[in-house]
Amino acid sequence: MGIAVIYGSSRRNGNSEQLAKRLVEGFEVDHIHLTEHHIEPIKDYRHSEKEPYPDDDYRSVIERVLAQDRLVFATPIYWYGASGLTKTFIDRWSQSLRENKDEFLAKLRGKSAWVIGIGDDEPQLKGIPLIQQFQYIFEYTGTSFEGYILGKANRPGDILEDKFALASVEEIRVKWREALN
Amino acid sequence: MGIAVIYGSSRRNGNSEQLAKRLVEGFEVDHIHLTEHHIEPIKDYRHSEKEPYPDDDYRSVIERVLAQDRLVFATPIYWYGASGLTKTFIDRWSQSLRENKDEFLAKLRGKSAWVIGIGDDEPQLKGIPLIQQFQYIFEYTGTSFEGYILGKANRPGDILEDKFALASVEEIRVKWREALN
Amino acid sequence: MGIAVIYGSSRRNGNSEQLAKRLVEGFEVDHIHLTEHHIEPIKDYRHSEKEPYPDDDYRSVIERVLAQDRLVFATPIYWYGASGLTKTFIDRWSQSLRENKDEFLAKLRGKSAWVIGIGDDEPQLKGIPLIQQFQYIFEYTGTSFEGYILGKANRPGDILEDKFALASVEEIRVKWREALN
Amino acid sequence: MGIAVIYGSSRRNGNSEQLAKRLVEGFEVDHIHLTEHHIEPIKDYRHSEKEPYPDDDYRSVIERVLAQDRLVFATPIYWYGASGLTKTFIDRWSQSLRENKDEFLAKLRGKSAWVIGIGDDEPQLKGIPLIQQFQYIFEYTGTSFEGYILGKANRPGDILEDKFALASVEEIRVKWREALN
Repeated sequence: MGIAVIYGSSRRNGNSEQLAKRLVEGFEVDHIHLTEHHIEPIKDYRHSEKEPYPDDDYRSVIERVLAQDRLVFATPIYWYGASGLTKTFIDRWSQSLRENKDEFLAKLRGKSAWVIGIGDDEPQLKGIPLIQQFQYIFEYTGTSFEGYILGKANRPGDILEDKFALASVEEIRVKWREALN
Repeated sequence: MGIAVIYGSSRRNGNSEQLAKRLVEGFEVDHIHLTEHHIEPIKDYRHSEKEPYPDDDYRSVIERVLAQDRLVFATPIYWYGASGLTKTFIDRWSQSLRENKDEFLAKLRGKSAWVIGIGDDEPQLKGIPLIQQFQYIFEYTGTSFEGYILGKANRPGDILEDKFALASVEEIRVKWREALN
Repeated sequence: MGIAVIYGSSRRNGNSEQLAKRLVEGFEVDHIHLTEHHIEPIKDYRHSEKEPYPDDDYRSVIERVLAQDRLVFATPIYWYGASGLTKTFIDRWSQSLRENKDEFLAKLRGKSAWVIGIGDDEPQLKGIPLIQQFQYIFEYTGTSFEGYILGKANRPGDILEDKFALASVEEIRVKWREALN
Repeated sequence: MGIAVIYGSSRRNGNSEQLAKRLVEGFEVDHIHLTEHHIEPIKDYRHSEKEPYPDDDYRSVIERVLAQDRLVFATPIYWYGASGLTKTFIDRWSQSLRENKDEFLAKLRGKSAWVIGIGDDEPQLKGIPLIQQFQYIFEYTGTSFEGYILGKANRPGDILEDKFALASVEEIRVKWREALN
């Protein structure tokens, strides 16, 4: 099994996508662009009659995510957090919890995760709450949070000149290669 | 001018709504339930030809928000952050920045803001990244971040038995009343 | 067994002390003022020959702490963190880990803890890293982190007019009284 | 003018020291090892008669710090924060504020700062509160917080095998060299 990259940008080929692609190049990858799928906000049925959940792309997307061993969330930093696309997708995990909690958590528990957040307003400082949020998410699901990259970029392509981000990418790739052997 | 409450729950009459209503009772209020409006994810046109933004409810909602002096964001804590509805709405502020940055920021600069986040998994600790995210948002917009309430609740109505949350509500109401005189 | 209050201020009768005393009034308490004890910085002997640890008041103070069930850390917020007195005391826990790790952790594991941090520069926002630091500390020691109060005060006595802090104090006292019965 | 490195470890030649030395090698540096100086905890005289401050090494150390343009705080992560030696030194800045606020802040305002924190318990996640604390400190003093390195190490020398930390070091050195020309 391989890597699922969950792209949270509304724009194709932006900086978070470019860095994520550099990260996973040559590995077995399923590229999941949330902007190409229709995923509605969560309905909170915890305390009401169970109405039907939206008939949209959530189930097919989460199945692709759960089919891989490693998860990479690649999101632009919008307003000091993950993109709304990313957050709306994760909110829907509550539906999976409600429909099949034990199986859902059992699948996430075995996985490893990385987060890439790219922004232009001091991302290494102001992207910290985003990382802490993912820290709590993975703590809850039992997923191993292996690392993150907070990169600085504004114009398309900027990120490929961020030596710090590229060094982080290379370090993760070395670990992944070692795990193959 | 009065208070705009921006409700981020997908469920009516949940705990975050109940606490916010207790907070603003008797004041001049515009109640804005995001779940009753259609707001699409932001399109990122910063580095491309400017295509039309979605023709949805964003403009009418943001105008109602900007028409008031005080902003109260009332959101359930979903996955250790603001709800996707809330985040998607705030992401769209980038559209306002692009369409009319100076005027948009000038309006937000004069306002005061409060955040209510209600969750059931140690909200006073694990709701902290949510607060820090809003801290950076208001720092950017120049809005005065006056306070927040992280309350604990699970079943509907729980929050009205959280003495700590109620005391916080009362303290804010006292300040608002004093400001009236 | 009762409550150990660990006062971290260098000044007697300051705001953090006043609020902590209000919190524990009427309960069985051991008041520990770090400023009245001599505690040296930790020596890091993890990777060297074990030299003698400082012959100071650390052992007697930590024994008083470990003798109680509930711990209240009451510190002024100095430079956005716990006071140096408080931090230096906690650093010395590494000595206890080295001398008798299992017994030390077993004792801390059974306890509950609260943190009071009082400052004058937006403590509810800028005191957050202090709380997160204690969160990790108690996670490591297995101590149950029950709650915290970030109060605003500058001049002596200010804190007793902070309704929010007083409401928090009262809520904790109610829980403690219930636990007595 | 050059670089002041403020070493916060109680141990010489530990991982934080080794990484900091790699960082500044070849530049004009004043190496300040706090463990070799005697610095007492701050006395809080804000609300009492001004008694004499401790007659210790604080003044000579802070003068060496203020004489340089760039500050590097190199501290082991003890209990998820800066070492007590580091914190106690920074607490004493309150003395400088009291003795000569305008001059003290004017000097810090012109400087740039970096923080190195080395620990062995998930430093990239659990070292975050330490970084946020420094963020607020430098925001207050007007010092430009240019970057940080959270490195993982346990045994002496480990840090020199942390490719991520070494890449960060190299990136900073490149910037410093460019500034020379």
